[in-house]
Amino acid sequence: MKDAIGIVPGLAVILVGSRKDSQTYVRNKKACEAVGIQSFEVNLPEDSSEEEVIKHIASFNSDPSVHGILVELPLLRHMNDESILNAVGIEKDVDGFHPLNIGRLAMQGRDPFFVPCTPKGCMELLHRYGVEIKGKRAVVIGRSNIVGMPAALLLQKANATVSIVHSQTKNPEEITRQADIVIAAVGVANLVRGNWIKPGAAIIDVGINPVDDPESPRGYRLVGDVCYEEASKVAGAITPVPGGVGPMTIAMLLANTLESAKRIHNFK
Amino acid sequence: MKDAIGIVPGLAVILVGSRKDSQTYVRNKKACEAVGIQSFEVNLPEDSSEEEVIKHIASFNSDPSVHGILVELPLLRHMNDESILNAVGIEKDVDGFHPLNIGRLAMQGRDPFFVPCTPKGCMELLHRYGVEIKGKRAVVIGRSNIVGMPAALLLQKANATVSIVHSQTKNPEEITRQADIVIAAVGVANLVRGNWIKPGAAIIDVGINPVDDPESPRGYRLVGDVCYEEASKVAGAITPVPGGVGPMTIAMLLANTLESAKRIHNFK
Repeated sequence: MKDAIGIVPGLAVILVGSRKDSQTYVRNKKACEAVGIQSFEVNLPEDSSEEEVIKHIASFNSDPSVHGILVELPLLRHMNDESILNAVGIEKDVDGFHPLNIGRLAMQGRDPFFVPCTPKGCMELLHRYGVEIKGKRAVVIGRSNIVGMPAALLLQKANATVSIVHSQTKNPEEITRQADIVIAAVGVANLVRGNWIKPGAAIIDVGINPVDDPESPRGYRLVGDVCYEEASKVAGAITPVPGGVGPMTIAMLLANTLESAKRIHNFK
Repeated sequence: MKDAIGIVPGLAVILVGSRKDSQTYVRNKKACEAVGIQSFEVNLPEDSSEEEVIKHIASFNSDPSVHGILVELPLLRHMNDESILNAVGIEKDVDGFHPLNIGRLAMQGRDPFFVPCTPKGCMELLHRYGVEIKGKRAVVIGRSNIVGMPAALLLQKANATVSIVHSQTKNPEEITRQADIVIAAVGVANLVRGNWIKPGAAIIDVGINPVDDPESPRGYRLVGDVCYEEASKVAGAITPVPGGVGPMTIAMLLANTLESAKRIHNFK
């Protein structure tokens, strides 16, 4: 794209109250460098006002060298600050979290501008490893706006028969056992045991949960929502934690940024 | 509302290529009269251009005595004419079909401006008849943008464990048999047989299908997606066709129009 039309895809990250050495940030920046995407960044203190954040978003919205905008808010604000996330221009919302994007994702005959990165990564894993989706039973465990719900919508659009299991579900193990495909995105360490799994099923584990581990130098280790040791003996395919879905999320963020640059410049 | 603040809720209907004596139209108009909602109407020929339709929508969008706008397009156009339906101002989209509305319906922590009328009517039936939803298994048969998909999202928001069954589902009867609540919205006469139903389940039948009936003066009669004769012997509750969901859709359209007028005039 750079050679053909002189355009370099650009990704802008607005960090609110995150340390510049935060793992996600460093990882995203390195990934951009590796594939030739230009990084932009703004670092704002945690006590920044909504107006300040929105001012920076607006400036990236109108900056022609920026094709994707990511706002990293502290978790609690992230869940509530609708107006901040809504300020990101929908044509640069590479996170795909805007309700208009989600609506288009849900509807037959419409397509979202961007598919949210983590669910997109789950689908890419299924496609790359040749897991058939059409006509299969799929269970999504968890119904968050950023993973579970959009993952269920994507599986449904790919013609799976989808059930969503959540905290109010009475017999999650029984329903999960019917699934040919399981996406676990609930944030509970080792929730999904071996006896929840249908033999041969494909398991995508989105959870990244710290559990105490005195033998680890950090005092903890990361495990998924799926008890890997048990499930790997029953499943036909399973993603590890760490690894697995995590790196896919970053790859899909880069893919969305490239897609955005192509769309904005009508480059095929 | 009329007495308190002098505002009469208004519903505008734009008919494209429908006869003025169409059943739906006459029924809606009578219903508006019965509850004191003011009706507005525009009748356009089937060969009207997109621009003409949008011109009328724009005029209702800016008319302060109109609080809800309904566009009745011929079926084939209805499915495709995204730009016509998108032209309806989201604060007057009492159909609730705008993708932004659907996105807000799908997301935790967000609410749609309007809940689409037929799925809203299904939920109202469940509430009025005291059918518990939270923690129950629900199966939605069909995944249309106007009924199945939003109904599944509503049941999920009400904390049911929801599965969507569709044309690509391999064992629909087996999955449906697990459900405490079934919403059938697929448009296939008598698809759901008695042996698909869990004893005691609540069945909402959205289908309205004409089947040949030489004994009827019209030569046909209307049946649902559920075989009522069989299912009513097994179910704990079941809606009839005709009747049942149909009148609820109209009632919810009136309710959405009132809700819109209240919101626009900040009337509690």
